[in-house]
Amino acid sequence: MSCPTHRRPEYRKINKDLFVLTYGALVAQLCKDYEKDEDVNKYLDKMGYGIGTRLVEDFLARSCVGRCHSYSEITDIIAQVAFKMYLGITPSVTCNNSSRNEFSLILDKNPLVEFVEELPAGRSSLCYCNLLCGIIRGALEMTHTTELTHNQTISGGHSKGPFVQEQAYFY
Amino acid sequence: MSCPTHRRPEYRKINKDLFVLTYGALVAQLCKDYEKDEDVNKYLDKMGYGIGTRLVEDFLARSCVGRCHSYSEITDIIAQVAFKMYLGITPSVTCNNSSRNEFSLILDKNPLVEFVEELPAGRSSLCYCNLLCGIIRGALEMTHTTELTHNQTISGGHSKGPFVQEQAYFY
Repeated sequence: MSCPTHRRPEYRKINKDLFVLTYGALVAQLCKDYEKDEDVNKYLDKMGYGIGTRLVEDFLARSCVGRCHSYSEITDIIAQVAFKMYLGITPSVTCNNSSRNEFSLILDKNPLVEFVEELPAGRSSLCYCNLLCGIIRGALEMTHTTELTHNQTISGGHSKGPFVQEQAYFY
Repeated sequence: MSCPTHRRPEYRKINKDLFVLTYGALVAQLCKDYEKDEDVNKYLDKMGYGIGTRLVEDFLARSCVGRCHSYSEITDIIAQVAFKMYLGITPSVTCNNSSRNEFSLILDKNPLVEFVEELPAGRSSLCYCNLLCGIIRGALEMTHTTELTHNQTISGGHSKGPFVQEQAYFY
Protein backbone atom coordinates (compact mmCIF):
# COMPACT_ATOMS: atom_id res chain seq x y z
CA MET A 1 0.00 0.00 0.00
CA SER A 2 1.44 3.34 -0.92
CA CYS A 3 1.55 6.13 1.59
CA PRO A 4 -0.90 8.98 0.94
CA THR A 5 0.50 12.39 0.12
CA HIS A 6 1.53 14.10 3.34
CA ARG A 7 0.74 17.60 4.34
CA ARG A 8 3.95 19.47 5.05
CA PRO A 9 4.94 18.30 8.54
CA GLU A 10 5.71 21.89 9.51
CA TYR A 11 2.00 22.68 9.52
CA ARG A 12 1.42 20.09 12.18
CA LYS A 13 3.98 21.43 14.60
CA ILE A 14 3.91 23.84 17.48
CA ASN A 15 6.40 25.11 19.99
CA LYS A 16 7.41 22.47 22.50
CA ASP A 17 7.60 24.81 25.49
CA LEU A 18 3.93 25.67 25.21
CA PHE A 19 3.06 21.98 25.42
CA VAL A 20 5.51 21.24 28.22
CA LEU A 21 4.24 24.09 30.39
CA THR A 22 0.61 23.23 29.70
CA TYR A 23 1.29 19.63 30.64
CA GLY A 24 2.92 20.81 33.86
CA ALA A 25 -0.18 22.82 34.65
CA LEU A 26 -2.32 19.75 34.04
CA VAL A 27 -0.27 17.60 36.41
CA ALA A 28 -0.35 20.36 39.03
CA GLN A 29 -4.13 20.50 38.73
CA LEU A 30 -4.41 16.75 39.19
CA CYS A 31 -2.14 16.88 42.24
CA LYS A 32 -4.51 19.46 43.66
CA ASP A 33 -7.51 17.24 42.93
CA TYR A 34 -6.15 13.90 44.06
CA GLU A 35 -4.37 13.40 47.33
CA LYS A 36 -2.77 10.07 46.45
CA ASP A 37 -0.03 9.82 43.83
CA GLU A 38 -1.56 6.55 42.74
CA ASP A 39 -4.76 8.32 41.78
CA VAL A 40 -2.92 11.01 39.83
CA ASN A 41 -0.95 8.31 38.02
CA LYS A 42 -4.13 6.43 37.16
CA TYR A 43 -5.78 9.57 35.91
CA LEU A 44 -2.81 10.52 33.72
CA ASP A 45 -2.79 7.03 32.28
CA LYS A 46 -6.53 7.13 31.61
CA MET A 47 -6.24 10.54 30.00
CA GLY A 48 -3.32 9.35 27.89
CA TYR A 49 -5.29 6.28 26.87
CA GLY A 50 -8.01 8.50 25.43
CA ILE A 51 -5.44 10.59 23.59
CA GLY A 52 -3.73 7.46 22.22
CA THR A 53 -6.97 6.09 20.80
CA ARG A 54 -7.39 9.33 18.85
CA LEU A 55 -3.79 9.89 17.82
CA VAL A 56 -3.25 6.42 16.39
CA GLU A 57 -5.37 6.95 13.30
CA ASP A 58 -3.31 9.98 12.36
CA PHE A 59 -0.15 8.05 13.15
CA LEU A 60 -1.05 5.14 10.89
CA ALA A 61 -2.06 7.44 8.06
CA ARG A 62 1.13 9.47 8.22
CA SER A 63 3.70 6.85 9.12
CA CYS A 64 2.54 4.16 6.69
CA VAL A 65 3.93 1.46 8.96
CA GLY A 66 2.86 -2.06 8.11
CA ARG A 67 1.65 -4.85 10.38
CA CYS A 68 4.15 -5.87 13.03
CA HIS A 69 5.04 -9.48 13.65
CA SER A 70 6.80 -9.28 16.99
CA TYR A 71 6.87 -7.30 20.21
CA SER A 72 10.32 -6.17 19.24
CA GLU A 73 9.07 -4.70 15.97
CA ILE A 74 6.25 -2.88 17.75
CA THR A 75 8.66 -1.41 20.27
CA ASP A 76 11.01 -0.21 17.58
CA ILE A 77 8.19 1.54 15.74
CA ILE A 78 6.99 3.21 18.94
CA ALA A 79 10.51 4.41 19.69
CA GLN A 80 11.83 5.31 16.26
CA VAL A 81 8.72 6.44 14.45
CA ALA A 82 6.03 7.48 16.95
CA PHE A 83 8.20 9.22 19.55
CA LYS A 84 10.15 10.94 16.80
CA MET A 85 6.97 12.08 15.08
CA TYR A 86 5.17 13.38 18.16
CA LEU A 87 7.88 14.45 20.59
CA GLY A 88 10.88 14.84 18.31
CA ILE A 89 12.97 12.36 20.27
CA THR A 90 14.02 8.75 19.84
CA PRO A 91 14.19 6.70 23.03
CA SER A 92 16.65 3.87 23.15
CA VAL A 93 15.13 0.42 23.54
CA THR A 94 16.30 -2.39 25.74
CA CYS A 95 14.78 -5.82 26.03
CA ASN A 96 14.39 -6.94 29.63
CA ASN A 97 13.81 -10.68 29.42
CA SER A 98 14.61 -13.77 27.42
CA SER A 99 11.00 -14.15 26.23
CA ARG A 100 11.46 -10.82 24.45
CA ASN A 101 8.11 -9.55 25.59
CA GLU A 102 9.21 -6.89 28.05
CA PHE A 103 11.01 -3.76 26.93
CA SER A 104 12.12 -0.41 28.29
CA LEU A 105 11.97 2.78 26.32
CA ILE A 106 14.64 5.00 27.82
CA LEU A 107 14.31 8.71 27.20
CA ASP A 108 17.73 10.21 27.72
CA LYS A 109 16.28 13.61 27.04
CA ASN A 110 12.67 13.91 28.10
CA PRO A 111 11.04 17.12 26.84
CA LEU A 112 8.13 16.75 29.26
CA VAL A 113 10.33 17.41 32.27
CA GLU A 114 12.33 20.28 30.82
CA PHE A 115 10.84 22.81 33.22
CA VAL A 116 10.49 20.47 36.17
CA GLU A 117 12.96 21.30 38.87
CA GLU A 118 11.65 18.80 41.37
CA LEU A 119 8.39 17.10 42.22
CA PRO A 120 6.26 18.71 44.93
CA ALA A 121 6.93 17.65 48.50
CA GLY A 122 5.22 14.39 49.43
CA ARG A 123 4.79 13.40 45.80
CA SER A 124 7.64 10.93 45.52
CA SER A 125 5.49 8.25 43.87
CA LEU A 126 4.16 10.52 41.19
CA CYS A 127 4.69 9.17 37.66
CA TYR A 128 4.95 12.61 36.15
CA CYS A 129 4.97 11.40 32.56
CA ASN A 130 2.37 8.67 32.91
CA LEU A 131 0.38 10.29 30.15
CA LEU A 132 2.89 8.82 27.69
CA CYS A 133 2.28 5.29 28.97
CA GLY A 134 -1.45 5.81 28.60
CA ILE A 135 -1.03 7.11 25.06
CA ILE A 136 0.95 4.02 24.06
CA ARG A 137 -1.62 1.74 25.69
CA GLY A 138 -4.52 3.46 23.94
CA ALA A 139 -2.79 3.52 20.56
CA LEU A 140 -1.88 -0.16 20.74
CA GLU A 141 -5.36 -1.19 21.69
CA MET A 142 -6.81 0.68 18.75
CA THR A 143 -4.47 -0.95 16.26
CA HIS A 144 -6.19 -4.28 16.89
CA THR A 145 -2.92 -6.13 16.94
CA THR A 146 -4.75 -8.43 19.30
CA GLU A 147 -2.62 -11.48 18.79
CA LEU A 148 0.32 -9.48 19.98
CA THR A 149 -1.16 -7.19 22.56
CA HIS A 150 -3.94 -9.25 24.09
CA ASN A 151 -2.33 -9.47 27.50
CA GLN A 152 -0.37 -6.33 27.20
CA THR A 153 -0.25 -3.78 29.95
CA ILE A 154 1.93 -0.77 30.34
CA SER A 155 3.32 0.44 33.59
CA GLY A 156 6.16 2.64 34.70
CA GLY A 157 6.86 6.14 33.43
CA HIS A 158 8.35 7.44 36.63
CA SER A 159 10.02 10.77 36.70
CA LYS A 160 11.35 12.13 39.92
CA GLY A 161 13.07 15.01 38.21
CA PRO A 162 14.61 16.11 34.97
CA PHE A 163 17.69 14.03 35.51
CA VAL A 164 15.92 10.73 35.88
CA GLN A 165 15.58 8.57 32.80
CA GLU A 166 12.07 7.92 31.67
CA GLN A 167 11.06 4.33 31.21
CA ALA A 168 8.00 2.54 29.94
CA TYR A 169 7.63 -1.19 30.06
CA PHE A 170 5.18 -3.38 28.30
CA TYR A 171 4.76 -7.08 28.65
CA MET B 1 21.32 44.70 20.47
CA SER B 2 22.05 41.78 18.22
CA CYS B 3 20.02 38.63 18.45
CA PRO B 4 21.83 35.64 19.98
CA THR B 5 22.49 32.61 17.82
CA HIS B 6 19.33 30.52 17.65
CA ARG B 7 19.08 26.84 18.18
CA ARG B 8 17.48 25.23 15.13
CA PRO B 9 13.75 25.91 15.57
CA GLU B 10 12.97 22.32 14.60
CA TYR B 11 14.38 21.11 17.91
CA ARG B 12 11.84 23.17 19.76
CA LYS B 13 8.83 21.75 17.99
CA ILE B 14 6.46 18.91 18.67
CA ASN B 15 3.38 17.54 16.97
CA LYS B 16 0.41 19.83 17.33
CA ASP B 17 -2.18 17.07 17.78
CA LEU B 18 -0.51 15.87 20.95
CA PHE B 19 -0.80 19.35 22.44
CA VAL B 20 -4.36 19.90 21.24
CA LEU B 21 -5.59 16.60 22.69
CA THR B 22 -3.75 17.16 25.96
CA TYR B 23 -5.26 20.61 26.24
CA GLY B 24 -8.70 19.11 25.63
CA ALA B 25 -8.08 16.66 28.46
CA LEU B 26 -7.09 19.54 30.72
CA VAL B 27 -10.26 21.49 29.98
CA ALA B 28 -12.35 18.36 30.51
CA GLN B 29 -10.69 17.85 33.89
CA LEU B 30 -11.42 21.43 34.91
CA CYS B 31 -15.05 21.05 33.82
CA LYS B 32 -15.23 18.02 36.08
CA ASP B 33 -13.71 19.98 38.97
CA TYR B 34 -15.63 23.22 38.65
CA GLU B 35 -19.35 23.38 38.19
CA LYS B 36 -19.49 26.95 36.96
CA ASP B 37 -18.10 27.95 33.58
CA GLU B 38 -16.92 31.16 35.14
CA ASP B 39 -14.64 29.22 37.50
CA VAL B 40 -13.21 27.11 34.69
CA ASN B 41 -12.55 30.26 32.68
CA LYS B 42 -10.83 31.88 35.63
CA TYR B 43 -8.71 28.82 36.23
CA LEU B 44 -7.65 28.58 32.57
CA ASP B 45 -6.72 32.24 32.63
CA LYS B 46 -4.74 31.82 35.84
CA MET B 47 -2.97 28.77 34.47
CA GLY B 48 -2.21 30.62 31.23
CA TYR B 49 -0.90 33.57 33.23
CA GLY B 50 1.67 31.32 34.89
CA ILE B 51 2.69 29.86 31.54
CA GLY B 52 2.99 33.34 30.00
CA THR B 53 5.30 34.54 32.73
CA ARG B 54 7.64 31.64 31.94
CA LEU B 55 7.35 31.67 28.15
CA VAL B 56 8.08 35.35 27.75
CA GLU B 57 11.75 35.09 28.56
CA ASP B 58 12.23 32.52 25.86
CA PHE B 59 10.15 34.63 23.51
CA LEU B 60 12.23 37.75 24.05
CA ALA B 61 15.48 35.85 23.64
CA ARG B 62 14.42 34.19 20.42
CA SER B 63 12.35 36.89 18.76
CA CYS B 64 14.71 39.80 19.48
CA VAL B 65 11.81 42.24 19.40
CA GLY B 66 12.57 45.69 20.70
CA ARG B 67 10.58 47.92 23.03
CA CYS B 68 7.12 48.78 21.78
CA HIS B 69 5.81 52.32 21.76
CA SER B 70 2.10 51.76 21.24
CA TYR B 71 -0.68 49.29 21.92
CA SER B 72 -0.88 48.76 18.22
CA GLU B 73 2.75 47.71 18.02
CA ILE B 74 2.33 45.31 20.94
CA THR B 75 -0.71 43.74 19.33
CA ASP B 76 1.10 43.27 16.02
CA ILE B 77 4.00 41.54 17.74
CA ILE B 78 1.67 39.24 19.65
CA ALA B 79 -0.18 38.34 16.46
CA GLN B 80 2.62 38.18 13.93
CA VAL B 81 5.56 37.00 16.01
CA ALA B 82 4.34 35.27 19.17
CA PHE B 83 1.33 33.39 17.76
CA LYS B 84 3.38 32.36 14.74
CA MET B 85 6.24 31.18 16.91
CA TYR B 86 4.18 29.20 19.41
CA LEU B 87 1.08 28.05 17.55
CA GLY B 88 2.15 28.39 13.93
CA ILE B 89 -0.70 30.74 13.07
CA THR B 90 -1.08 34.47 12.54
CA PRO B 91 -4.32 35.98 13.82
CA SER B 92 -5.64 39.02 12.03
CA VAL B 93 -5.84 42.15 14.14
CA THR B 94 -8.62 44.68 14.25
CA CYS B 95 -8.73 47.82 16.32
CA ASN B 96 -12.04 48.30 18.07
CA ASN B 97 -12.05 51.94 19.15
CA SER B 98 -10.83 55.37 18.25
CA SER B 99 -8.48 55.52 21.25
CA ARG B 100 -6.62 52.59 19.69
CA ASN B 101 -6.34 50.77 22.99
CA GLU B 102 -8.74 47.89 22.35
CA PHE B 103 -7.98 45.24 19.77
CA SER B 104 -9.25 41.87 18.66
CA LEU B 105 -7.02 39.01 17.61
CA ILE B 106 -9.12 36.91 15.27
CA LEU B 107 -8.00 33.33 14.78
CA ASP B 108 -9.57 32.17 11.54
CA LYS B 109 -8.03 28.79 12.10
CA ASN B 110 -7.65 27.91 15.75
CA PRO B 111 -5.54 24.79 16.32
CA LEU B 112 -6.77 24.42 19.91
CA VAL B 113 -10.28 23.54 18.79
CA GLU B 114 -9.34 21.18 15.97
CA PHE B 115 -10.73 18.15 17.74
CA VAL B 116 -13.60 19.93 19.46
CA GLU B 117 -16.92 18.99 17.94
CA GLU B 118 -19.02 20.89 20.44
CA LEU B 119 -18.81 22.04 24.02
CA PRO B 120 -20.37 19.78 26.66
CA ALA B 121 -24.06 20.32 27.44
CA GLY B 122 -24.64 23.16 29.88
CA ARG B 123 -21.24 24.66 29.19
CA SER B 124 -22.31 27.43 26.87
CA SER B 125 -20.31 30.10 28.72
CA LEU B 126 -17.07 28.17 28.68
CA CYS B 127 -14.16 30.12 27.19
CA TYR B 128 -12.48 27.02 25.86
CA CYS B 129 -9.29 28.80 24.81
CA ASN B 130 -8.99 31.12 27.79
CA LEU B 131 -5.52 29.74 28.43
CA LEU B 132 -4.32 31.86 25.51
CA CYS B 133 -5.68 35.05 27.08
CA GLY B 134 -3.94 34.17 30.32
CA ILE B 135 -0.67 33.53 28.52
CA ILE B 136 -0.80 36.94 26.85
CA ARG B 137 -1.65 38.60 30.15
CA GLY B 138 1.22 36.89 31.97
CA ALA B 139 3.72 37.57 29.21
CA LEU B 140 2.81 41.26 29.03
CA GLU B 141 3.07 41.71 32.74
CA MET B 142 6.53 40.19 32.77
CA THR B 143 7.80 42.47 30.03
CA HIS B 144 7.45 45.43 32.40
CA THR B 145 6.08 47.63 29.66
CA THR B 146 4.28 49.28 32.54
CA GLU B 147 3.67 52.60 30.91
CA LEU B 148 1.68 50.80 28.27
CA THR B 149 0.10 47.96 30.14
CA HIS B 150 -0.51 49.38 33.56
CA ASN B 151 -4.27 49.22 33.34
CA GLN B 152 -4.45 46.46 30.87
CA THR B 153 -6.72 43.51 31.31
CA ILE B 154 -7.55 40.77 28.90
CA SER B 155 -10.93 39.18 28.57
CA GLY B 156 -12.76 37.17 25.96
CA GLY B 157 -11.44 34.09 24.24
CA HIS B 158 -14.78 32.41 23.74
CA SER B 159 -15.02 29.32 21.67
CA LYS B 160 -18.33 27.58 21.32
CA GLY B 161 -17.06 25.24 18.67
CA PRO B 162 -14.49 24.87 15.96
CA PHE B 163 -16.36 27.12 13.57
CA VAL B 164 -16.47 30.11 15.84
CA GLN B 165 -13.73 32.68 15.45
CA GLU B 166 -11.47 33.09 18.41
CA GLN B 167 -11.08 36.57 19.78
CA ALA B 168 -9.04 38.18 22.49
CA TYR B 169 -9.47 41.77 23.52
CA PHE B 170 -7.22 43.89 25.57
CA TYR B 171 -7.79 47.40 26.69
